[in-house]
Amino acid sequence: MQKPPVQTIACLLICCPDQPGIVAGVSTFFFQLGANILDASQHSTDPREGLFFMRMEIQLDIADRAGLEQSFQEKVATPLSMEWQLHYSDQRKKMAIMVSSYDHCLMELLWRWRNGELAVDIPVVISNHTKLEKECTLLDIPFHYLPVNAGNKAEQEQAAIGLLEQHQVDFTVLARYMQILSPRFVGLYPQRIINIHHSFLPAFAGARPYLNAYTRGVKLIGATAHYVTNELDEGPIIEQDVARVSHKHSVDDLVMLGRDIERQVLTRAVKAHIENRVIVHGNKTIVF
Amino acid sequence: MQKPPVQTIACLLICCPDQPGIVAGVSTFFFQLGANILDASQHSTDPREGLFFMRMEIQLDIADRAGLEQSFQEKVATPLSMEWQLHYSDQRKKMAIMVSSYDHCLMELLWRWRNGELAVDIPVVISNHTKLEKECTLLDIPFHYLPVNAGNKAEQEQAAIGLLEQHQVDFTVLARYMQILSPRFVGLYPQRIINIHHSFLPAFAGARPYLNAYTRGVKLIGATAHYVTNELDEGPIIEQDVARVSHKHSVDDLVMLGRDIERQVLTRAVKAHIENRVIVHGNKTIVF
Amino acid sequence: MQKPPVQTIACLLICCPDQPGIVAGVSTFFFQLGANILDASQHSTDPREGLFFMRMEIQLDIADRAGLEQSFQEKVATPLSMEWQLHYSDQRKKMAIMVSSYDHCLMELLWRWRNGELAVDIPVVISNHTKLEKECTLLDIPFHYLPVNAGNKAEQEQAAIGLLEQHQVDFTVLARYMQILSPRFVGLYPQRIINIHHSFLPAFAGARPYLNAYTRGVKLIGATAHYVTNELDEGPIIEQDVARVSHKHSVDDLVMLGRDIERQVLTRAVKAHIENRVIVHGNKTIVF
Amino acid sequence: MQKPPVQTIACLLICCPDQPGIVAGVSTFFFQLGANILDASQHSTDPREGLFFMRMEIQLDIADRAGLEQSFQEKVATPLSMEWQLHYSDQRKKMAIMVSSYDHCLMELLWRWRNGELAVDIPVVISNHTKLEKECTLLDIPFHYLPVNAGNKAEQEQAAIGLLEQHQVDFTVLARYMQILSPRFVGLYPQRIINIHHSFLPAFAGARPYLNAYTRGVKLIGATAHYVTNELDEGPIIEQDVARVSHKHSVDDLVMLGRDIERQVLTRAVKAHIENRVIVHGNKTIVF
Repeated sequence: MQKPPVQTIACLLICCPDQPGIVAGVSTFFFQLGANILDASQHSTDPREGLFFMRMEIQLDIADRAGLEQSFQEKVATPLSMEWQLHYSDQRKKMAIMVSSYDHCLMELLWRWRNGELAVDIPVVISNHTKLEKECTLLDIPFHYLPVNAGNKAEQEQAAIGLLEQHQVDFTVLARYMQILSPRFVGLYPQRIINIHHSFLPAFAGARPYLNAYTRGVKLIGATAHYVTNELDEGPIIEQDVARVSHKHSVDDLVMLGRDIERQVLTRAVKAHIENRVIVHGNKTIVF
Repeated sequence: MQKPPVQTIACLLICCPDQPGIVAGVSTFFFQLGANILDASQHSTDPREGLFFMRMEIQLDIADRAGLEQSFQEKVATPLSMEWQLHYSDQRKKMAIMVSSYDHCLMELLWRWRNGELAVDIPVVISNHTKLEKECTLLDIPFHYLPVNAGNKAEQEQAAIGLLEQHQVDFTVLARYMQILSPRFVGLYPQRIINIHHSFLPAFAGARPYLNAYTRGVKLIGATAHYVTNELDEGPIIEQDVARVSHKHSVDDLVMLGRDIERQVLTRAVKAHIENRVIVHGNKTIVF
Repeated sequence: MQKPPVQTIACLLICCPDQPGIVAGVSTFFFQLGANILDASQHSTDPREGLFFMRMEIQLDIADRAGLEQSFQEKVATPLSMEWQLHYSDQRKKMAIMVSSYDHCLMELLWRWRNGELAVDIPVVISNHTKLEKECTLLDIPFHYLPVNAGNKAEQEQAAIGLLEQHQVDFTVLARYMQILSPRFVGLYPQRIINIHHSFLPAFAGARPYLNAYTRGVKLIGATAHYVTNELDEGPIIEQDVARVSHKHSVDDLVMLGRDIERQVLTRAVKAHIENRVIVHGNKTIVF
Repeated sequence: MQKPPVQTIACLLICCPDQPGIVAGVSTFFFQLGANILDASQHSTDPREGLFFMRMEIQLDIADRAGLEQSFQEKVATPLSMEWQLHYSDQRKKMAIMVSSYDHCLMELLWRWRNGELAVDIPVVISNHTKLEKECTLLDIPFHYLPVNAGNKAEQEQAAIGLLEQHQVDFTVLARYMQILSPRFVGLYPQRIINIHHSFLPAFAGARPYLNAYTRGVKLIGATAHYVTNELDEGPIIEQDVARVSHKHSVDDLVMLGRDIERQVLTRAVKAHIENRVIVHGNKTIVF
């Protein structure tokens, strides 16, 4: 039998047709359970679409979560035609990382994780290179080398999927993983794979964005973290940022400066995902 | 007799001891009036202090505002020991501007006002110089020249106060007004006078901030918009921003670059104030 | 007869094959004339291309400019296979502005010009609308209304060209001029027409960039100032900048926020052009 | 006997009274040696002070450096009353790091060094804690634990100085070293000790800057890299940057956000120092 959690914080995400009474209904439901609302953010889309989104952090000490959730469904969600999720702070997410040979995004995530900035478990790192194994094993994170070549792509992906399933991974971060995932892989994890693309999307989608930025002569370069869909570099954008460059910078300079943006942007996106701040709506995100 | 307002949006600001039931109480109150909550933001201070702040935009069509407010006081505010304000979108605020001879902040405010970005009336501009009269009269804004010298400061302030009272001004913007207001003046308008200081406070408070920034050799210069209190440049900060500078920039260059920051920072602060997004708490602001 | 200029500052721009002796040759030439080099910036492209660019500000008091230039050609430019330009600070550039009905870019340029930030003459503003006439005539700037419709585009452009020629305009700023210039017009003024595009190019080229940015769900919007070529929005980029946006912002909000970026970016690009800081090389710029 | 260096790049820094002929004199001197000027930047202070500064990158293959330098002194430096330094790219600087127990600045420097971004040797890391030893020894960098307490401060500093001397260290980075160095220590290494202070100086000098920033309610926090002098936090500023914060952020949040600024600012300052881009003039820096 589950012991009552102490000081658990639940995070509620909802989406429903906009209508009077949503905040009152949700907040009254939790008030009657003795719960305290710690934070709430809401967003209404424009009136033609008429959707309402809310994220609420609730402090509640309830052992019977199944009962709570059934009650919420009946008393609040069904009457308001609401889709919803509840995440509990004592259930840490499991994050996998897939990486090739560039180390900066992996190192940044591991450093922040080690420092307590990322409240997740990292049960597995998967790479098609061996180069970054030591960085993981030093922190006791299992590293799996799954090489990929022209002939074994399907098998390699299946092995990766097997690892994600085995470790009950909640979401996967592509920390400069230089392989395009198949539609099958992507389809298994909707809104659960975060990629960092090294350009300010939609500019310079696809290969060699720094070279293309250099050739075009832009005065800012950028990076974009987004959920992976089957349209390459077209998935919902979570976070972006840029840095100033000039004619003095070579392509190599752009690569070096870009690393710093990639690290920052990916970190912010991963944090937002971990803290249940991101709701995908169509091909866009609401980041509370 | 007052005609029922159509599509009025009310903005509620509250502060009360943090406790379960606040959101439920407030939202249920308005739900029962048939009102729709358009937006809400909340903030809790740390548990030792234990205060709760909220801003809520509510669409409501209620002619009897006095009755509404009395009912809110009895049913919600008194039980929760709540301080609160209600602002109605059909009651445009009246903004005065005080300015000396630099034109950039005044021009920026007037341009945005003319473009519909600032939803206020501007019944009066007061200046201790005549230089900017034409800019105001071209837009049919009354301009009052109130010169100040060593001997007439008290009388000049009294004349200014007279104008603010006569025009029932809600708040005053010091758009590079180069006179220090007396404690009496400031005391009449707590949290209702916004100043733009041309440095990144608390650095370079007082006179000649650009010269002092130049002398110190900082690599960023800034501007700060704050409510005026009787401690010079010590009032609650509403907004700040900075721009990058280098050894190449003379003091005159800093003044020129600083103008752009001042314009942006002051505009954002004034907008936040107009939209009832700012709550002062102690000597700090919550800007929703 | 021309009176010797006092305290004239000449700005030299050069491009030549990279080779030892360029700086020595140029600086010795001017030293022997008793001139003082106030500032110099240089840039070498990568060794495969092997080009050298330099901008030099020189204080020189020489009445016989034709003689100076002939001597520079013979002693320095020809031996080093150099292309070069000399601009003199006492010959103010003549800047035309073309604008439709949005006022923000025009107002910004006029305000800075009035304040002495832009060292140019503005002999003519051309618009296909009458809306902004008063803003120009108040500052004694001639405003020409040249309406354009489906049938008169060629004639309207010819009239505009006539005005530019009549006023001996050095360069033209498209301050949100919502007409596409014909190849003939563009061909007359290579690297002498500056446009502000309201997106972070190459993202969202063409029409309705704010709507497209909204639809794509980007987290930053931008603006780009570039020289006009016959490839729409593909000309050499002079300056870009961005501002952060979120799911809260409607298309109208993006338009409003974008105005501030457009104003800043266009101003910086125009200043760089006026100060002879921009060299176009291929489809890119060097901005010293 | 020294073998002639191949493709050495020399970096010349000069300071002298402003006067015609400096650029011509310097560039002609190197041209006559067959050297190629790769890059040059210059700065003149205002005419009352009348000083000229220049940084020049020169490609030269000369084995007899003592002869070169003597010749430069005689032919160029003495006639122009010039102070100057020459740095050669094949003489890597030796950088020491002093650190207490916060890891972020150390980790950032080590990661960039490992990636080839910092062209230095790191012969020694000195710490008054043991916590970060492993991070250094993993990269084969000698780590020295020199504990400090109320009674041994002078001895501990002497031991540190001994290590710096023994390893012929060129400059020392205080990567969040939480001890104030004595005037004697500082006096041994003028402009050769770089500190990162966790505020936007001159705001919040001294202890607990994040707490003080929180208490003052600023809307931006910052970090400052500067050369250490005997006035605490008053030395010449090399680099600064800021990040936006709001009422939502606790002191702990500011500490966390501040780490990212500290890492970036310190890195940029250290790179500028390594690349000989910084000239100290009075209490300010010129950063080319």
